[in-house]
Amino acid sequence: MASTSTTPLLDRVHDPEDLRGLADDDLRQLADELRQEVIDAVSHTGGHLGAGLGVVELTVAIHYLFNTPKDRLIWDVSHQCYPHKVLTERRDRIRTLRQGGGLSGFTSRKESDYDPFGAAHSSTSISAGLGFAVARDLRGGDENVVCVIGDGAMSAGMAYEAMNNAGAMNSRLIVILNDNDMSIAPPVGAMSAYLSRTISSRSYRTMRNAARELADQFPRAFSTAARRAEEYARGLLTGGTLFEEMGFYYVGPIDGHNLDHLLPVLRNVRDAEGGGPILVHCVTQKGKGYAPAEGSADKYHGVAKFDVVTGKQSKPTPQAPQFTKVYAESLIQEAEDDERVVAVTAAMPGGTGVDKFTERFPDRGFDVGIAEQHGVTFCGGLAAAGYRPFATIYSTFLQRAYDQIVHDVAIQQLPVRFAIDRAGMVGADGVTHQGSYDITYLGTLPGFVLMAAADEAELKHMVATAASIDDRPSALRYPRGEGFGVEMPSRGEPLAIGKGRVLREGSTVAILSYGTRLYEALSAADSLEARGLSTTVADARFCKPLDTELVERLARQHDVLVTVEEGAVGGFSAHVLTHLARAGMLDRGLAVRPMTLPDAFIDHGKPYEQYEEAGLNAHHVAAQALQALGYSDADAALLRSVSA
Amino acid sequence: MASTSTTPLLDRVHDPEDLRGLADDDLRQLADELRQEVIDAVSHTGGHLGAGLGVVELTVAIHYLFNTPKDRLIWDVSHQCYPHKVLTERRDRIRTLRQGGGLSGFTSRKESDYDPFGAAHSSTSISAGLGFAVARDLRGGDENVVCVIGDGAMSAGMAYEAMNNAGAMNSRLIVILNDNDMSIAPPVGAMSAYLSRTISSRSYRTMRNAARELADQFPRAFSTAARRAEEYARGLLTGGTLFEEMGFYYVGPIDGHNLDHLLPVLRNVRDAEGGGPILVHCVTQKGKGYAPAEGSADKYHGVAKFDVVTGKQSKPTPQAPQFTKVYAESLIQEAEDDERVVAVTAAMPGGTGVDKFTERFPDRGFDVGIAEQHGVTFCGGLAAAGYRPFATIYSTFLQRAYDQIVHDVAIQQLPVRFAIDRAGMVGADGVTHQGSYDITYLGTLPGFVLMAAADEAELKHMVATAASIDDRPSALRYPRGEGFGVEMPSRGEPLAIGKGRVLREGSTVAILSYGTRLYEALSAADSLEARGLSTTVADARFCKPLDTELVERLARQHDVLVTVEEGAVGGFSAHVLTHLARAGMLDRGLAVRPMTLPDAFIDHGKPYEQYEEAGLNAHHVAAQALQALGYSDADAALLRSVSA
Repeated sequence: MASTSTTPLLDRVHDPEDLRGLADDDLRQLADELRQEVIDAVSHTGGHLGAGLGVVELTVAIHYLFNTPKDRLIWDVSHQCYPHKVLTERRDRIRTLRQGGGLSGFTSRKESDYDPFGAAHSSTSISAGLGFAVARDLRGGDENVVCVIGDGAMSAGMAYEAMNNAGAMNSRLIVILNDNDMSIAPPVGAMSAYLSRTISSRSYRTMRNAARELADQFPRAFSTAARRAEEYARGLLTGGTLFEEMGFYYVGPIDGHNLDHLLPVLRNVRDAEGGGPILVHCVTQKGKGYAPAEGSADKYHGVAKFDVVTGKQSKPTPQAPQFTKVYAESLIQEAEDDERVVAVTAAMPGGTGVDKFTERFPDRGFDVGIAEQHGVTFCGGLAAAGYRPFATIYSTFLQRAYDQIVHDVAIQQLPVRFAIDRAGMVGADGVTHQGSYDITYLGTLPGFVLMAAADEAELKHMVATAASIDDRPSALRYPRGEGFGVEMPSRGEPLAIGKGRVLREGSTVAILSYGTRLYEALSAADSLEARGLSTTVADARFCKPLDTELVERLARQHDVLVTVEEGAVGGFSAHVLTHLARAGMLDRGLAVRPMTLPDAFIDHGKPYEQYEEAGLNAHHVAAQALQALGYSDADAALLRSVSA
Repeated sequence: MASTSTTPLLDRVHDPEDLRGLADDDLRQLADELRQEVIDAVSHTGGHLGAGLGVVELTVAIHYLFNTPKDRLIWDVSHQCYPHKVLTERRDRIRTLRQGGGLSGFTSRKESDYDPFGAAHSSTSISAGLGFAVARDLRGGDENVVCVIGDGAMSAGMAYEAMNNAGAMNSRLIVILNDNDMSIAPPVGAMSAYLSRTISSRSYRTMRNAARELADQFPRAFSTAARRAEEYARGLLTGGTLFEEMGFYYVGPIDGHNLDHLLPVLRNVRDAEGGGPILVHCVTQKGKGYAPAEGSADKYHGVAKFDVVTGKQSKPTPQAPQFTKVYAESLIQEAEDDERVVAVTAAMPGGTGVDKFTERFPDRGFDVGIAEQHGVTFCGGLAAAGYRPFATIYSTFLQRAYDQIVHDVAIQQLPVRFAIDRAGMVGADGVTHQGSYDITYLGTLPGFVLMAAADEAELKHMVATAASIDDRPSALRYPRGEGFGVEMPSRGEPLAIGKGRVLREGSTVAILSYGTRLYEALSAADSLEARGLSTTVADARFCKPLDTELVERLARQHDVLVTVEEGAVGGFSAHVLTHLARAGMLDRGLAVRPMTLPDAFIDHGKPYEQYEEAGLNAHHVAAQALQALGYSDADAALLRSVSA
């Protein structure tokens, strides 16, 4: 029976060793099959498609020419790693991408030896690669270290710090710049590829090193000038001067989809002798080889499941507005009344809704690129000059700007507003994107106002509240995804600072929620009431300043106080416990149960499953109350069937 | 009576308006007087001397030519701001620098309108300046924004992010690069100064703009090449290509001590028309004009009080070894036995003791520059490759690398060791340097081992402990300054992970200390015992994993449990309270009193005074216990006289 496989070559490749058994001439077909496989897989799973399609040939060429996993290959951000996963023993699981229990959408050390360093935040690869390279030198090893980094990632200061350091060291490191920004791409063609091949060849390098050695005989001032002249002259032809200034040997640009260009250049680079970092500039096209992706504005950066033939994505009809959309609309409303309101995002205009703001107010929306540090202090300057900046950044990425938050904003008590999107569990992006720590790392800073929205209407009011706070920094957090379909006010109204609200009055159990677990708390209260336990549910709204009056009243008037938050230890519950202790309210006894994210990292899956793993769903809340009241575990377990 | 003042011109300058009343020819003498005044002031106060001496002429020129404070002048790091303070209404208080209640050693918004943006951490000025510039443009203002940034600060990614963003915008911003790194300084002289004056003149700029406009008429590829050629040609002569690549108009290098060069160039820059950022490259000499500073290796970067004539600093004889020194010696011992131990610092080799390590092991000590982000992920790579890196960074600067700690180290559970120097109150450097938050921001991360050294012997053991922890990240913190003179072990021995120790057994009050407050706790115990209150004192050693057995025993066996730490809310006490609550140990009552740094920023002063303000000295600890036991405030106040 003849094989009917449409991927006959790929079927023979279980790992890169198999790949290295193929001939150069087979690789074009293999790349085509790999591209087809990735498109088919992502059509079933959803995920990052465009980035992977852009590096199919590069992935094939690297694994073909380098001795992975002994040679270390580090993908920056690594959302482009799906083709890499297919070639490195994970093809059989590629249709579990980003599903609970399945493959991660990013590289992961615990998933494979072919992933020496995991990534999902941008611009870390050169630093990590330099660590591997220096360790190799100390050990006396000979493996290659190859980092692949996108041009967008080059806007982050971290990449610059790493290049600056690598350029000053003599450690051998290969950095492949995957340049897919068509708007700034230099011309690519035969002449350019020829030049790149030439200058990456052994003979050229040898000649150049000889020239350098000669130059070193001259007095320093002269040799510096001579070196500079040579490098600038080459930069004029090839555009790599910036990298040469940083101490890299620059090769490129080359066409990253043309294996006839890629293979010889990478072979030369691999076989080149001598130390120091090398930068290979590849130009690629995001979404390459899949017409719907190539034709789309975002090149299918992140997609839902889709139909391979038409490219049509099957996005479910939303039941309620997304938090991000509510945020953007609310901010636009505020900005219409107050020309001091401005919005700043760090390379996430679409994800944060700042694109909508900028459409409406082209002069007042700012995308600073992947540059959270700069973005926050830029907001500090704007605030010091009397403006009302909203730094709109995902919780996980705001970590990049922590020192700027402390040093430039908090210490100076500048009224920068932090709009923290993707707070709490984020679903399929998984462990590296969870918004778990912001309550803790901001709550410890003096003078901050911290809010968490329980639903989309609350979010609207909190945007108005933040806009109105002009004497100190403030932050509001809200999750990824849809709201609860609650009735929306036509306008946000500033809330009373540091005041929570009670949604349901009871007498035995008090549940104090901070954030969108409020609806789980209400559901838990239903379960408890069904067992005759009168339950109060309150929404703290503010972690800081804490509504101490509310906290004390809940503590005094109930047998049990459960706190719930979508954050790790040290956050909201720590503020509640600290206040209760200092007020002496624990002295005579209080069954208080702080519910936080667990002391563990939570992988990709659906948010409900992630909260199930975290133990923060309704039945967990009810079980905590029961356990505190002395009910047995079996009693508590019963609740699970009620509330699940 | 004739004036005997040695600073007759300076005596006439209360603020920059007075300065602007002088003639160009008076400025040389004024600068000399200003230099003399700064030397004399710092000889009394100690502080940063070399940096200020390097910018005396620049300070004079800027305030003379720019309309401060309407024009915004932002000093990066700002340890070079003493001459600026003398000229901006603060000469009468200049001899209170860095003293409690006196002037800050850095710029400060709350101190003066001439300080539009405070700084003390490096590389923030361009971001803040861009914020002021954009705000000006939105408002339709016409003031200048001038940032002064040192060449060392250029190694931080944040400066790059800011330049990258500023270069892409059309906002008018003047950045003065104060280049005092003699090893990389380009040649400076009449010809170079001439070139700089030429290219900063109006006619040159006009011609250049015309050429650009012309080039814009050509097809894009051609015009880009033409522009590039022009800029590279200029770069070849003047060395500014890197900045031109970033979108800055580059002027320089000029001699930053020669007013005849500075004044015309800055006038040209000030009066230039058109938008976009300008970089003025000034070459200066740190410590300029004071022979002992010029002749010293560190150019009197930070000095104690000194004798103006001899330059001899009056450093008191230490009573006990500095924590930093103990750390360095301990790490060297570990490294002698284990070649996998390596040390990384971010531009603080002397301050962290890593210089000593690198002297002993030249291949295994790494200074990555002001680049904490890169430094931490570089350590991640080293750890992933089997090495045992110690990332040795001050608490306050480690904030810069928070995302890298979370994303690259913690999530991957890589055994990077964080040696956190300057934890807790730091004294004269003040609010921007306090090490207040690391317990909280690290404690919230899953899997970390967190230690705090109670004294220098403990530190030695903790270095050995960290070296031995190879399956997850760990951190140890220790304060600035001297130890307690305790007996030192000859070798550090790994401690039992997650186990504290009891120093003194009692029955009524338990004090659980985390860090060097242990000695205050022991002193508090003396006071309490003197009143007949039997007191236990324990050293937790670990915040994480917490010694839950010890915590529970202390809670069970005492009427009061006081926790003490040198950190803000959300840290050690939060972990103790959370455990007690979850274990149900608060249900029947426990007078627990968490003592942390207050929810306020604490300014410069002596550490004892700062802890007095924070309420963390021995008498505060005793008072907390008494208050919890129901003693009146008057009783507690009595204690103060006992323990003070």
